[in-house]
Amino acid sequence: MILDRKTDEFLLAALNEDIGDGDITTECTVKDGTQASGRYIAKEDGIVCGVDIACRVFELLGGKVNFKKIKNDGDTVVKGDVIAEVSGEAKTILIGERTGLNIMQRLSGIATRTNQAVKAIEGTNAKIADTRKTTPLMRKLEKYAVRVGGGSNHRFGLSDGILIKDNHIAAAGGITKAIESAKAKAPHTIKIEVETETLDQVKEALKAKADIIMLDNMNLEQTKQAVELINGQAITEASGNMGDKTNEQLKAIAETGVDLISIGALTHSVKSLDISLKFKIV
Amino acid sequence: MILDRKTDEFLLAALNEDIGDGDITTECTVKDGTQASGRYIAKEDGIVCGVDIACRVFELLGGKVNFKKIKNDGDTVVKGDVIAEVSGEAKTILIGERTGLNIMQRLSGIATRTNQAVKAIEGTNAKIADTRKTTPLMRKLEKYAVRVGGGSNHRFGLSDGILIKDNHIAAAGGITKAIESAKAKAPHTIKIEVETETLDQVKEALKAKADIIMLDNMNLEQTKQAVELINGQAITEASGNMGDKTNEQLKAIAETGVDLISIGALTHSVKSLDISLKFKIV
Amino acid sequence: MILDRKTDEFLLAALNEDIGDGDITTECTVKDGTQASGRYIAKEDGIVCGVDIACRVFELLGGKVNFKKIKNDGDTVVKGDVIAEVSGEAKTILIGERTGLNIMQRLSGIATRTNQAVKAIEGTNAKIADTRKTTPLMRKLEKYAVRVGGGSNHRFGLSDGILIKDNHIAAAGGITKAIESAKAKAPHTIKIEVETETLDQVKEALKAKADIIMLDNMNLEQTKQAVELINGQAITEASGNMGDKTNEQLKAIAETGVDLISIGALTHSVKSLDISLKFKIV
Amino acid sequence: MILDRKTDEFLLAALNEDIGDGDITTECTVKDGTQASGRYIAKEDGIVCGVDIACRVFELLGGKVNFKKIKNDGDTVVKGDVIAEVSGEAKTILIGERTGLNIMQRLSGIATRTNQAVKAIEGTNAKIADTRKTTPLMRKLEKYAVRVGGGSNHRFGLSDGILIKDNHIAAAGGITKAIESAKAKAPHTIKIEVETETLDQVKEALKAKADIIMLDNMNLEQTKQAVELINGQAITEASGNMGDKTNEQLKAIAETGVDLISIGALTHSVKSLDISLKFKIV
Amino acid sequence: MILDRKTDEFLLAALNEDIGDGDITTECTVKDGTQASGRYIAKEDGIVCGVDIACRVFELLGGKVNFKKIKNDGDTVVKGDVIAEVSGEAKTILIGERTGLNIMQRLSGIATRTNQAVKAIEGTNAKIADTRKTTPLMRKLEKYAVRVGGGSNHRFGLSDGILIKDNHIAAAGGITKAIESAKAKAPHTIKIEVETETLDQVKEALKAKADIIMLDNMNLEQTKQAVELINGQAITEASGNMGDKTNEQLKAIAETGVDLISIGALTHSVKSLDISLKFKIV
Amino acid sequence: MILDRKTDEFLLAALNEDIGDGDITTECTVKDGTQASGRYIAKEDGIVCGVDIACRVFELLGGKVNFKKIKNDGDTVVKGDVIAEVSGEAKTILIGERTGLNIMQRLSGIATRTNQAVKAIEGTNAKIADTRKTTPLMRKLEKYAVRVGGGSNHRFGLSDGILIKDNHIAAAGGITKAIESAKAKAPHTIKIEVETETLDQVKEALKAKADIIMLDNMNLEQTKQAVELINGQAITEASGNMGDKTNEQLKAIAETGVDLISIGALTHSVKSLDISLKFKIV
Repeated sequence: MILDRKTDEFLLAALNEDIGDGDITTECTVKDGTQASGRYIAKEDGIVCGVDIACRVFELLGGKVNFKKIKNDGDTVVKGDVIAEVSGEAKTILIGERTGLNIMQRLSGIATRTNQAVKAIEGTNAKIADTRKTTPLMRKLEKYAVRVGGGSNHRFGLSDGILIKDNHIAAAGGITKAIESAKAKAPHTIKIEVETETLDQVKEALKAKADIIMLDNMNLEQTKQAVELINGQAITEASGNMGDKTNEQLKAIAETGVDLISIGALTHSVKSLDISLKFKIV
Repeated sequence: MILDRKTDEFLLAALNEDIGDGDITTECTVKDGTQASGRYIAKEDGIVCGVDIACRVFELLGGKVNFKKIKNDGDTVVKGDVIAEVSGEAKTILIGERTGLNIMQRLSGIATRTNQAVKAIEGTNAKIADTRKTTPLMRKLEKYAVRVGGGSNHRFGLSDGILIKDNHIAAAGGITKAIESAKAKAPHTIKIEVETETLDQVKEALKAKADIIMLDNMNLEQTKQAVELINGQAITEASGNMGDKTNEQLKAIAETGVDLISIGALTHSVKSLDISLKFKIV
Repeated sequence: MILDRKTDEFLLAALNEDIGDGDITTECTVKDGTQASGRYIAKEDGIVCGVDIACRVFELLGGKVNFKKIKNDGDTVVKGDVIAEVSGEAKTILIGERTGLNIMQRLSGIATRTNQAVKAIEGTNAKIADTRKTTPLMRKLEKYAVRVGGGSNHRFGLSDGILIKDNHIAAAGGITKAIESAKAKAPHTIKIEVETETLDQVKEALKAKADIIMLDNMNLEQTKQAVELINGQAITEASGNMGDKTNEQLKAIAETGVDLISIGALTHSVKSLDISLKFKIV
Repeated sequence: MILDRKTDEFLLAALNEDIGDGDITTECTVKDGTQASGRYIAKEDGIVCGVDIACRVFELLGGKVNFKKIKNDGDTVVKGDVIAEVSGEAKTILIGERTGLNIMQRLSGIATRTNQAVKAIEGTNAKIADTRKTTPLMRKLEKYAVRVGGGSNHRFGLSDGILIKDNHIAAAGGITKAIESAKAKAPHTIKIEVETETLDQVKEALKAKADIIMLDNMNLEQTKQAVELINGQAITEASGNMGDKTNEQLKAIAETGVDLISIGALTHSVKSLDISLKFKIV
Repeated sequence: MILDRKTDEFLLAALNEDIGDGDITTECTVKDGTQASGRYIAKEDGIVCGVDIACRVFELLGGKVNFKKIKNDGDTVVKGDVIAEVSGEAKTILIGERTGLNIMQRLSGIATRTNQAVKAIEGTNAKIADTRKTTPLMRKLEKYAVRVGGGSNHRFGLSDGILIKDNHIAAAGGITKAIESAKAKAPHTIKIEVETETLDQVKEALKAKADIIMLDNMNLEQTKQAVELINGQAITEASGNMGDKTNEQLKAIAETGVDLISIGALTHSVKSLDISLKFKIV
Repeated sequence: MILDRKTDEFLLAALNEDIGDGDITTECTVKDGTQASGRYIAKEDGIVCGVDIACRVFELLGGKVNFKKIKNDGDTVVKGDVIAEVSGEAKTILIGERTGLNIMQRLSGIATRTNQAVKAIEGTNAKIADTRKTTPLMRKLEKYAVRVGGGSNHRFGLSDGILIKDNHIAAAGGITKAIESAKAKAPHTIKIEVETETLDQVKEALKAKADIIMLDNMNLEQTKQAVELINGQAITEASGNMGDKTNEQLKAIAETGVDLISIGALTHSVKSLDISLKFKIV
């Protein structure tokens, strides 16, 4: 369930950003009590995500609005499909529609993009994962959209996972030292992941008993060798410009036997799914 | 200047989202006092935007970090260009780098996309404008990126501009009634814009003395006729799926004589500009 | 409607300021479950404003209190009139009464004062307007009270209107330069107002196509000449110590043909309307 | 000292209310780096209060502004006196001036009004006190202004003093029961005040060992008798429409020997002291 | 009643601290809609406190949970007693149980400890009081637990009581000067307490008309003499390492005739009462 | 480093709770500019923790106070040791001392208690760990105190670790199902811990490849057998009323070969370390 108090706070802040000191247009042109009804319609094909949020926006505005879901998060839509129907107080609908749409369109865009990648590697054992390259303050929602699209989540942030990158390795004085230090100091509940760029680094990480080994910007051949080398002793994650790969390239990477392929572009370069709300006064 | 208290609050919330209860990786692998230096490098061509923000993030973390701008917001970069240099406390740089990059890459993406549209209509009198289809809580920054890319801003939100759309017209009982109502009730300091879809609506809006007339989803011929009809008595704004137009199509629209072309895709479907931070321990 | 989330936050902060760590008097002297009923009574003549707020305070306290409005915002009251009746949990009424009264009395004072000015210029085409000289954090409520009293609102704050004052003119290097600069940089949705103190300035503002011209501290004769000069090409606003004018003087100013008379004293020097809440234990 | 973290939060909220998404006028007409200097000038006679606040506003805006106090809180000013000089970044001064002035003018109005009452009873042993009829969220500042004007503060709010009013008495079943209940339950650190309207009530309060007895809406003769009756066994406080009394009437009340005269109008019906900021570009 | 808006904010912050970005264990292992029921059981003897809070936690989580109180705050429990029964949505119960238990166990510990001291001095006129040595942000709840255990509250914080300690005395230049200064400047509604360590100081405090005299770290004989000296002219409070006294020692102190014995350890060194929640899936 | 923005917010809230509308005692008795110096002295033996926090409190109050650390967090102190020296503005020291002491005493109590347990098992390979039974809103500080005392941290909260308890097992339909479900749905970066109460459950958890197995409330013999059974294939954690064990019992448990012993009492039943601040006016 994505609707919790934190999401509410986010939605309220978003409403506040848009509404400011009040929606003058609606105040000046729409009479109290005017009723309206409308439909959210997909203007292109994709996976829908965020329907509950579009609904929640109206609840947070305190308005008397009925919201009827036709599609649920994760459903496939084709151009022209009705996603939801809304009816009630025209003022509330007019004030809240843009905020809800902005979020639903973005999340649907992420779910759609994720699903394309997931489909591309169907038949392999690999999973598509996200990264920390998310929109500020939307990480929780965007990671939800990734799951809705069939993807898997990487750590949420800096405090719930250990990912030793090149810079940490340099600062610690090598992979072995970095892993040892993490094993000594970190809570025993969290796995240790290390970024590697060469097979030698893979070997060192393996020897130091890393739980997860990231294969960063390796070509297909290197990836294959790394996976063989690791041989199930650690989880493997392919990473690095994965957003630029074709479906065929993704499939080939997945077929090397890596456990995960993480793609920053799932969330840092989103094309919103086009959805419109058309309504009539009743 | 984009760095004010509200931006600070946004950056702090973004840092908080990422850092949570602390960056365990850095805490476990990097010793206090370790120094590092690095460079922000453009990985593709574009217009850079948000350099001050990448810097501000480190200040907000309270770290001892020197940040030297090589490029300023609005500068053109080509692949390989150094955008800024950073040096100082390794921990602070490691903790803050992703938050700063996430924002700078997105804003640079917006500035780059805006600039392409601005260049496309060069030589005409039209301006490229944004919309309210922005990322929740990033509207101020994203509208700044639009200006940095050479674009012009539409209203910030619902309280500082009047834009009477089809739904308001329906609720008010027609364009004339909607405009009259707005003229009677709204502060005298704000202009009245009306969305029109036909030439008849344009005529009615003109007669009711709208200050700005939006030509929504009109084809080139209709747009031309509308502009002629209005003949300088109101500001004209072409709108509707402008993000899907080619440069040539945008040019043709601008040449009809419209004052503004507003494009939602500038902010709702952003491709982040690829920028990396590479650093070495010193 | 004045009751939105921002108003709630203001009321909660006001309650918090008064209640602190709890109403010890009520806790110590009134038993849980004690019922009471009371009446809000006007102790002097005026226009009532803020009745819904007095009610909302009890709702925000979560108490079981029935609130029955006898008068609505904008209604005229004479000494002795019952404005509202309240009944229910004695504790809640005792804890919330002062906060509600403090606000209702102040807003009623503003509505009453505004209405006196509005009545003074009845029969002319001018409107009475407010300014930014409001009580910190009460601007929205106070501007509402001005409307309730029959007045018209000026811009809400610095971000939703352009008002080029003497200091801006000096900084920009003249009226023409200031207006040109604003036309080039500001969103196309907002009008440009300029403060003028002489007829020469009025001429310059007119030539530079200001949308609104403020006639600041001009005497009656100057005001008349300015209005004639402008001749409908811009909106006109008389301003400057308007709070010290007699009704007759206001009438004379309105009869010059100005569109608006803005009065800071409507909100900066408010005499609260005397209202009391008397109740009995039931 | 009135400048603490809570005051800062209040000032920031007030600035935020006024500035919203930015001061467009200043952004559009004043170049970065423009310098200005100005003077705060009293436009009428009074006691000045809030000078540090006008200064603090500029600090909170982070601007490079020098603020030189000529007068301090509590100083008497006559029309034309310079209260302070300000110089530095024109933008910051223009953005912050109204918020600072709005507060300083109001606090100076309160200090001036309080001082008139204090002067009126000079030579007696009575003190002028405030009430809880303050502006929401400004209670701390307004009570400070009362002290600056020579007055004395009543309790801050509902949690730091016990004031048993008519309604509490009714709810508790009489003065004696109310006081006994308060003595049993309240912290031993707080005095117990009771509101009385008749001499019989005064006697009952005295017998029940109230620490403070409020003489509410009593006439001069009753007040005299009550004070004699109490004879120093409790603190006495005259109250009820004291804001409508002439100086002579206040003097007469003070001469009955009451310890305090509390006046709600000190804060609920404030006439702001007229202060202007005139500056020139340098 | 301890459940007000401030308590809600505290509980929400506590939930937020524990839940962070979500309860992954519950999300991964418990299906939506799973029902459960359970019982809060005392694992040792004591006074229960905070039952409503354990209930409120589930309400704040928005979950569909029925909470049936078997014991009320202040009730004595023996090992094995059922305090409350809970049933409903398993997810909500699992997410909220620890936060509720952490608070209820601590408050019950305080009530239990307070009650032991109260019982120890039964038969005397003295009361057991708390101090400001409370857990940060839990003062209100902890002082409530003290009352529930039969104790009496000292001042809530620095703003609702005057307690002149040795350091203030030193700074003011003696007890007499400190009291005189407080009498002149403080609101007339608050009593003045002074800390004394010798009989000479007691005499000085008495002469200066302190309302309350704290006898700090005096032995039994000194305490007796001080109480005799004061002879009802001021409230007396024994203080200083009272948490280390045996029940017999407390009784002896109370029998000297002091009005209050204040014990910091009631809140600064709490042994939580052991309470468990065992439930079954239904 | 424990001093970050979140700690500051906690300290400010704690100061706010104590200070409320101002420290009247200090305001009334201590003149501006009075200087004082003092020393924090240990009144009993222990491990000190929170010295930087006592210092930070004065910085947050904005006062001119010099704070000189004599002891650092983790240092052993014996009764009479000076922990730190403070000098400067008397007002600031008086206002902030209690808040700082309340926190430092509690954290020192936790570090001291933890260290006793750590010492008890010296010579074994086991670590002492904390739990989620912490003080609401102090978890981060309390877990820091555990580390300072030589202990190790368990997960911070519900979102950064998976701990499948009896209730989750019941809801999921068994240990195997619960672990499989967690493996399928949780991020790959987090380990999976399962609570077991019998050897059969241990076997099932082992077979299902739990990363960590908690041995809950097992006796010494059972614990030994479980550890042998697990034989390094999972991390082992002994748990259940560990706070009631003697040092000898803890040692025996550690000698079974468990990796961790987690003790809730480290944080849920804290005896504050007695520390006083004595100062003199200079």
